[in-house]
Amino acid sequence: MAPPAATIDVEVLPESDTSTFTIPDRLTIQSVAKRRAASGKLIAGVAAPADLDQFKGRTSHRHKPDAKRWDHRLTPETLNRGGSSLKAAAAYLKTPGLISLGGGLPSSEYFPFHEIDVKVPLLGHCAQGEEGSEVLRAGMHDMAEGKSAFDIATAAQYGQGHGAAQFLRWIVEHTEIVHNPPYQDWSCTMTVGSTCAWDFALRMLCQPGDWILSEQYTFPAAVETAAPLGVKVAGVAMDENGMLASSLDHVLTNWDEKVRGGPKPFVLYTVPTGQNPTGSTQPIERRREIYGVCQKHDLYIFEDEPYYFLQMQPYKGPDASPIPPPASHEEFLNSIVPSFLSIDVDGRVMRSDSFSKVIAPGSRVGWITASEQMCDRFRTHADVCTQGPSGFSQLILFKLVDEIWGHSGYLDWLIHMRLEYTRRRNVMMESCERYLPKDIISWVPPMAGMFHWIQVDYTQHPKWIDGSVTMDELEEEIFQTIIRHGTLLMKGSWFCAERTKPRNTMFFRATYAAAKFDQIDEAIFRLGSAIRDSFGLRKQINGTHTNGTNGAHTNTTHTNETRTNGTHTNGTNGTNGVHTNGVRTNGVH
Amino acid sequence: MAPPAATIDVEVLPESDTSTFTIPDRLTIQSVAKRRAASGKLIAGVAAPADLDQFKGRTSHRHKPDAKRWDHRLTPETLNRGGSSLKAAAAYLKTPGLISLGGGLPSSEYFPFHEIDVKVPLLGHCAQGEEGSEVLRAGMHDMAEGKSAFDIATAAQYGQGHGAAQFLRWIVEHTEIVHNPPYQDWSCTMTVGSTCAWDFALRMLCQPGDWILSEQYTFPAAVETAAPLGVKVAGVAMDENGMLASSLDHVLTNWDEKVRGGPKPFVLYTVPTGQNPTGSTQPIERRREIYGVCQKHDLYIFEDEPYYFLQMQPYKGPDASPIPPPASHEEFLNSIVPSFLSIDVDGRVMRSDSFSKVIAPGSRVGWITASEQMCDRFRTHADVCTQGPSGFSQLILFKLVDEIWGHSGYLDWLIHMRLEYTRRRNVMMESCERYLPKDIISWVPPMAGMFHWIQVDYTQHPKWIDGSVTMDELEEEIFQTIIRHGTLLMKGSWFCAERTKPRNTMFFRATYAAAKFDQIDEAIFRLGSAIRDSFGLRKQINGTHTNGTNGAHTNTTHTNETRTNGTHTNGTNGTNGVHTNGVRTNGVH
Repeated sequence: MAPPAATIDVEVLPESDTSTFTIPDRLTIQSVAKRRAASGKLIAGVAAPADLDQFKGRTSHRHKPDAKRWDHRLTPETLNRGGSSLKAAAAYLKTPGLISLGGGLPSSEYFPFHEIDVKVPLLGHCAQGEEGSEVLRAGMHDMAEGKSAFDIATAAQYGQGHGAAQFLRWIVEHTEIVHNPPYQDWSCTMTVGSTCAWDFALRMLCQPGDWILSEQYTFPAAVETAAPLGVKVAGVAMDENGMLASSLDHVLTNWDEKVRGGPKPFVLYTVPTGQNPTGSTQPIERRREIYGVCQKHDLYIFEDEPYYFLQMQPYKGPDASPIPPPASHEEFLNSIVPSFLSIDVDGRVMRSDSFSKVIAPGSRVGWITASEQMCDRFRTHADVCTQGPSGFSQLILFKLVDEIWGHSGYLDWLIHMRLEYTRRRNVMMESCERYLPKDIISWVPPMAGMFHWIQVDYTQHPKWIDGSVTMDELEEEIFQTIIRHGTLLMKGSWFCAERTKPRNTMFFRATYAAAKFDQIDEAIFRLGSAIRDSFGLRKQINGTHTNGTNGAHTNTTHTNETRTNGTHTNGTNGTNGVHTNGVRTNGVH
Repeated sequence: MAPPAATIDVEVLPESDTSTFTIPDRLTIQSVAKRRAASGKLIAGVAAPADLDQFKGRTSHRHKPDAKRWDHRLTPETLNRGGSSLKAAAAYLKTPGLISLGGGLPSSEYFPFHEIDVKVPLLGHCAQGEEGSEVLRAGMHDMAEGKSAFDIATAAQYGQGHGAAQFLRWIVEHTEIVHNPPYQDWSCTMTVGSTCAWDFALRMLCQPGDWILSEQYTFPAAVETAAPLGVKVAGVAMDENGMLASSLDHVLTNWDEKVRGGPKPFVLYTVPTGQNPTGSTQPIERRREIYGVCQKHDLYIFEDEPYYFLQMQPYKGPDASPIPPPASHEEFLNSIVPSFLSIDVDGRVMRSDSFSKVIAPGSRVGWITASEQMCDRFRTHADVCTQGPSGFSQLILFKLVDEIWGHSGYLDWLIHMRLEYTRRRNVMMESCERYLPKDIISWVPPMAGMFHWIQVDYTQHPKWIDGSVTMDELEEEIFQTIIRHGTLLMKGSWFCAERTKPRNTMFFRATYAAAKFDQIDEAIFRLGSAIRDSFGLRKQINGTHTNGTNGAHTNTTHTNETRTNGTHTNGTNGTNGVHTNGVRTNGVH
């Protein structure tokens, strides 16, 4: 298996995707208002089933082919899911004058929430604080009073497994603006997050003893969700552009049931953009190649895309002048790599979208896009398991992205996030170039996501050379040395799809998502010291340690001394010697 | 199988439970503050793991026995759930001065929610509106600023599968105040609702081909959650006090694997209080009998208790004077039937609690209480599936029940709900006595929950007598007749645990939870007309139709005419003839 990413020279800088492929006939933001007007006022009361064809525009997709059917892949569990007999009774509720003593729904007069106000940033003033904010307000009966398409009485009540119809309308429109799936019967349904969506997908498609495929380094929770179900993961080799289509084909073509102890896989789990942990992003050409292999072997693709809108400005090196942000929504949308969904002519993709990385993880709201058959099976599952996402989350997010921002404001917010993550990534890249010993450490600047994937040439380590340690022992030793120097990274081996398989590469994952800029710089400085310490190097190469650099492009350095190995003046050597001035621990306290 | 409930004469009125059993050594509200003070200030930051022993009081439960282990019952799926390797790295975050570049958590500076204000009712002024409300406020960094134990930066971030530690503290205390489980190692963990908790429990305990047990009439979603997993439900006979312990024992003792096609069940699903659909409540003596049978056959009990706090004041008949509400929290707690959890000396109960019926279903927050072994397996599942409930929901509910109301205020709210549901139930009972033909229709006034279970003596129906219809056809015909008269009830057959089994009883389920009082009265009037119409009766018995009765105990009737069959002046005969003045449809519009 080829070593992934980060093996090419750091001077080979990836660009944003410059492919000429653009998604045809996207819904424009201007057309959304027209479509809404044409379909009439949306009145979606308590637990209203959503009519997605109305949201999609009844004639907009008729020229496209239908999705492939997946009956031959669905599990007995999924095929046996019937509808709810009680929900069937809802059909009668349309009878004029009917008084329902049917559904066991509590009266909204007992919901102890009369009004919800949320202070949200005024666009263009996204920094936090009193100035530059506006208030999102939801009342109990705003719908009856004609004030809003959604209110507390509806959001706080029971709902459908697919989520609130009014919010689903926004989701469908957003999906068409960004992806415009090239088959007719695509649909969307909400999730309580992508991890749960993946659990549902596994239960729809896999049975104990099955194998699935993923990148060789992958999101551990994806493996940990599959493993208890008796589903094993076969890793596919990667390069700096993510999964290799040739390796995917190779694994499938040469699948040996006897050796593997299970049938040839037909489910591919992939994070195409800003992949966790490698930070790699598949360019559109790579996606087309992979999709072609999936067609050849009739695979079903789970496209897990939490980092899709964390695609950043190109990184041009430490001294490059800043690149102007996208000048329009169109330019922004054209600058991001098209999704698998947008090239999915067969309906073989279930795409999982998330608000976790661009709004807030605690919202526990996301959605999938897939063919109506697959969405229907997903919804039927949600109806007897999670039900829809929290009504409070839905109400607050809906008011924010539909009523306050609209599609236009949401794209502005995403551009804001793009620029913020660009600044964060740049700070880390510049610190890495400044402090890390490049004869031992190598990397590729990520173009998307939260993660920086740092390769260590362990073959130069004295203990490896003298044969006194295994790969796992050496990784653990370096991990502990980095912690002793006051920085926490994640061990690469934690991300192996096939954990028992021998490896010939060593990586650590760093994130630039959360720490303050000066802390990122300090942490990378410590990392450099730790690596030199562990490898027995005597001198820092080209190192200037900039305390307090606050912002990506500032060149002000408060201390500019050249450091040598092991002499970090704040005392990073030794577990207890690290200074404690206001560091964020970003997790469990 | 004996016909359930509602078969005894309506004059035999159930009382609230008057058993002498009281739960020993409950935590008092006064002791909560002391315990909190003794355990020191709770600082639970982002994704903090909760120390439940601290919340329970480290010495309060040491005298109790340990729970039984359930290894012999757990599925391979559950036994194979490992911990998350990434979460293991959280252990290092306690290192002083450490800078974490580990976890992929977005920075709270990108959460577009600066402040959340929720207007909630002032206790004692629970009616909705501007007067009598106060504001619950959450800021971004309230914890760092010493303003609160919970804030937006924490709630909107990733969390643990068990939910936020600060809210879990309240849940643990509440559980000890109400139930005080009689074994040592009980624990709690949050859910995204009881339906999901049931799905998790099934996956922990059952495999395809297994059978479980439930009341013969049961919550359809419980059956619909089990069925796709290949798990069948065997019904246990009921009387007006719910499940019969003797029937449970009989089913288990006489279980024939060959006849049933599956092994003897070891999981019991039960809704002991205000059962859906029968409205029956097991008295404490019945619970003890059932628990004894569960011990005899080593069953594991899933106690699904959404209606637990909808236990009402006793119903004494239409002309009885109102019964004074509980005079103290202690009197209130002693007036409600003790749970299975509170008599669970073995740790064989997983109790599922819900805010859906007493706060709001849309919150999608609940919790289970079970032994630490079972809670641990549950949490490990949540970590790779749903994760914890929505942070917005948790934050708003925590601020309400912990910071604004406290345990004392929450019990006040529950007493308020008790009285409100009492009023609603009484309205429906009085209308039933007024309008329904008692020679055909019989019922038992429910003492808890949302549901009124109405038995129809189908043997008197002309079509049954002349043999021209099956049971299912006749039920459908009566159902449609009721709809034609302008009322929607639920068909009893929708609730059968074993749907293919022949029945000899016919029921319809009505709810008094949501409709306005005058609408309840009107709907029951229509029901009476529909039954007379269907059965070919010519005259209404003792009927006075009270339009606009607004409140349970008012005797003012706006129209007081005696009605005869088919002459409802507003035109209820015929699908399109029903009047449409402001009816609630309580569901899909």
